[in-house]
Amino acid sequence: MTEINWGALAQSWLDRLAQCSEPGRGVTRLPFTPEHRAALDILTELMQNAGLTVSMDAAGTLIGRLDGSADGPVLLLGSHQDSVREGGAYDGIMGVVLPVLAIQKLHASGRALPFSVEVLTFADEEGVRFPTALMGPRALAGTFDMAALDMQDRDGISLRRAMKDFGLAPENLPGLKRNPANILGWVEVHLEQGPVLEHAEQPIGIVTAICGIERHSVTLTGMAAHAGTVPMELRRDALAGASEFVLAVEALAQNTDGLLANVGELQVRPSAVNAVPGEVTLTLELRAPSDDLREEAAQELTSRANDIAVRRNLALDISRTYAQAATPCAHELSSRLAQAARKQGHKALHMPSGATHDTSAMADLCPVAMQFTRCKDSISHHPNESVDSAAMSAAIDVLCALLQTDLTN
Amino acid sequence: MTEINWGALAQSWLDRLAQCSEPGRGVTRLPFTPEHRAALDILTELMQNAGLTVSMDAAGTLIGRLDGSADGPVLLLGSHQDSVREGGAYDGIMGVVLPVLAIQKLHASGRALPFSVEVLTFADEEGVRFPTALMGPRALAGTFDMAALDMQDRDGISLRRAMKDFGLAPENLPGLKRNPANILGWVEVHLEQGPVLEHAEQPIGIVTAICGIERHSVTLTGMAAHAGTVPMELRRDALAGASEFVLAVEALAQNTDGLLANVGELQVRPSAVNAVPGEVTLTLELRAPSDDLREEAAQELTSRANDIAVRRNLALDISRTYAQAATPCAHELSSRLAQAARKQGHKALHMPSGATHDTSAMADLCPVAMQFTRCKDSISHHPNESVDSAAMSAAIDVLCALLQTDLTN
Repeated sequence: MTEINWGALAQSWLDRLAQCSEPGRGVTRLPFTPEHRAALDILTELMQNAGLTVSMDAAGTLIGRLDGSADGPVLLLGSHQDSVREGGAYDGIMGVVLPVLAIQKLHASGRALPFSVEVLTFADEEGVRFPTALMGPRALAGTFDMAALDMQDRDGISLRRAMKDFGLAPENLPGLKRNPANILGWVEVHLEQGPVLEHAEQPIGIVTAICGIERHSVTLTGMAAHAGTVPMELRRDALAGASEFVLAVEALAQNTDGLLANVGELQVRPSAVNAVPGEVTLTLELRAPSDDLREEAAQELTSRANDIAVRRNLALDISRTYAQAATPCAHELSSRLAQAARKQGHKALHMPSGATHDTSAMADLCPVAMQFTRCKDSISHHPNESVDSAAMSAAIDVLCALLQTDLTN
Repeated sequence: MTEINWGALAQSWLDRLAQCSEPGRGVTRLPFTPEHRAALDILTELMQNAGLTVSMDAAGTLIGRLDGSADGPVLLLGSHQDSVREGGAYDGIMGVVLPVLAIQKLHASGRALPFSVEVLTFADEEGVRFPTALMGPRALAGTFDMAALDMQDRDGISLRRAMKDFGLAPENLPGLKRNPANILGWVEVHLEQGPVLEHAEQPIGIVTAICGIERHSVTLTGMAAHAGTVPMELRRDALAGASEFVLAVEALAQNTDGLLANVGELQVRPSAVNAVPGEVTLTLELRAPSDDLREEAAQELTSRANDIAVRRNLALDISRTYAQAATPCAHELSSRLAQAARKQGHKALHMPSGATHDTSAMADLCPVAMQFTRCKDSISHHPNESVDSAAMSAAIDVLCALLQTDLTN
C-alpha cells in the first residue's frame, strides 16, 4: 500500500472545488447559488469518503459528523465555503477540507476518536452577495437577527428567497441554537493572509485573538492659499499637518506590541499643484487583539492629532465610524492546539488575526481556537492565493494530533 | 475747490470697468471680446481726461502717451485688462488706472513730467481664452512667436481671427518691437495676491524678482497590503514615506530664505481604509527669486526623497514637469521706486512675486520694476478680490513721486 500524500490530496480536492465558480478569473462562489450547490456536492462526497454522516441545517451549513468512542460533547471544526469575487481557492474552503482529511487519516490508521466531531461548512462568511454574513455560526450561537432575511442582493433577491430557492427553511433558523454544554469547542483552520509564517518559515500558527477593529475619519482644515504668494510662515497647510499625523500613527503602532494601525485613504483639497492644501480628510484604522490596547491607542492618537492641530492652527474633526470588539481565543483550547503543533515539530507561533472569521461568531457559543496555515506572498482574496501542500499536510497532522487529545478534562 | 480723494476716484473707475464683464459672478473679461472693447472705451475716456494721447497697437495694447518736458527715452507703465473667469475687479486693470490717475494728479497740480510716459493696457496676461499669453509685451520686446496666432479658443476661433475681428492687423506685430535705447524702463503696479503687506500693515511693497518656478511629479511605490494581516515591520507603506517627504519639503522652505515650496496634490493607491498604501503620487512646486536657489532646493529634495525611499525600501520616480526662470527686477529702477515710496512715509518692503506678470515679458526689453499694493485676505482671481482705496491712494502718490524723479541718469 502506497503512503498517501495528504497535502497533495487536499490540493486535488481544492482544485475540484475551485471549479465551482462563476466564469472569470479566480474563484467566485457566492452563497445559495449553483456554484455553492456544486461545491456542497463535492464536499458531501469528500465527507462520506471520510466516513462522516452528512446533513444540512436550515442556515445552509453542511455538517459532516462522526461519533466518537464515548458519548459526550462534540468538537466542532470547519470554516466557510464562499469566496469573494475573483478570489482564491483556499480562503474558507480549505478549513473544511483539511479537518475532513484529518478525520479520514485517523480513520485510515485505525485510530478511534475520543469524542464526536462535526465539520461545518458555513454558507457565507465574506458577505459579498448580501449585506450581512456569518448567518451559519450566528444561528448556532443564537445571535442571528431574523431581520437580516429581508436583505437583498444586487438583483433584488432577498436572503429569505435565496435560501428557500436553495431548498432551505429559514423559518427554522431559531431552532438551530446549540446548547454550549454539548460542545467541547470550535477549531478553525484558515490561511494566514499575511507574511508572518512565510517569513518565519513555519507552516502553522496559533491565533491568540481575532483583532478588534476601529475606524476613524479625520479631517484637518487649514487655509487653501496660492503657493506663489503666501510665505511659508503664514501658511496653514493641512497636508503638512496630516503628514505629521500619518507618521505619528506609524510610530505608535511600531512601538506598541500587537497594535496595527493604518492610514489607507487620504484626500487633499483643493488639490492643485500651486495651491497650498486647505483641507485633508484621511481614514485611520486600528486593530489590536485587546480592546483596551486599541482604545488606548485611539485616545493617544486623538491627543496627538489635537497637538498637531493646535500647533499648526488647523481645525480638527475626528470621529469614530466603526468599531468591532476583539475576540480572544480560548486559552485552554488554544494551548491544546499549540501542544499538538509542537508535538509535530512546529514552533506554533502565536499571532493575532487581523481579519475577521467565522470564529468571531462561534465565540458567542463555545471556546474557540484557530490555526493559521502559511500562504504565499501574503496573497488572499485574489486568484493567485496559494497554500503549499507541505503546509496543508502539516495542518492535517496537527489536527490529527488534536483529535487524539483528551479535550474533555 | 474740494480736495480730490484719488483712491476713491480709482475705485469709481474700477467699479465702472468691473461692469465690462460676461454675465455671472465677479469679473470675466477675456481678450478680443465685447467686454474687452467696452473696457477700452472707458480706459480711453480715463486716459483722455488725464491728458494722454490714446492709440492702439497691432497687439491690441491700448497706449496712453504724454510727452515730457524734454525729448528722450520714455517710461512705460501699465498692466493687463483681462481677468480670469469669475475673477476680481483689480487684478491687472488696477495697474492701468493708477498710473493714469497719477499722471492726472501731477497734471492737476501743475507739475510737468521730466520725461515722456506711456501707460500700456495689454490685452491678455491671464491666458484664459487662448493657450498663450503676454502677446502685448512680447511684441514690444520682439519675443512674440507668430505661430501662436494659430492657437484656438474653445469655440475653434484662432487668435488671428479674433484679433482681426477686433479690428487689429496681426501681420504688423513684428513691427511693434521697440528700441531699448528709447525706453527708460517699465513699472507695473499690481495687487500683491498675498498676505505680506496686510500682515505688515503697509500699503506698498517693492518686488525684488518674479520667482522662477519648477514643478516635479514624485511617485513613491511600496507594496499594497492588507492592513489587518501584515505586521508593521513588514510593511512598505508609500504614504508614510510620502509624509516624510512632505515634511522635508516644508522644513527646507521654512529654513531657506526666499524659497517657497508646496506639495499641492497627493493621490494614494489603492485608497481603501484597510489597505496599506502601495503607491503615492504627489506634486512638488518650488518658487524662488533666484534660479540657483531654486535648483539647489530641487537637488536637495531629490536627495532627501532618495534617502527616504532607500530607508523604507520604496521605489522612487521623480521627474521635473515644468520650469520657468526667475525674472530679477532692475536694481536701479527698483531703488528709485523704493525711494519714492519711502519719501511718502512707507516702509517699501522688498518682496518677491510668486506669481507671473506682464513684467516677466517686459524684462526682455528694458529695466523693470514692480510695485505691489496691499490686498484684502490674500484673495485674488476671485469675485471677493479687494484693494482698499487708502492703498490705491498711496500707490498713486508713490507713482507721482517716481514720475518726478530724474530717471535719466
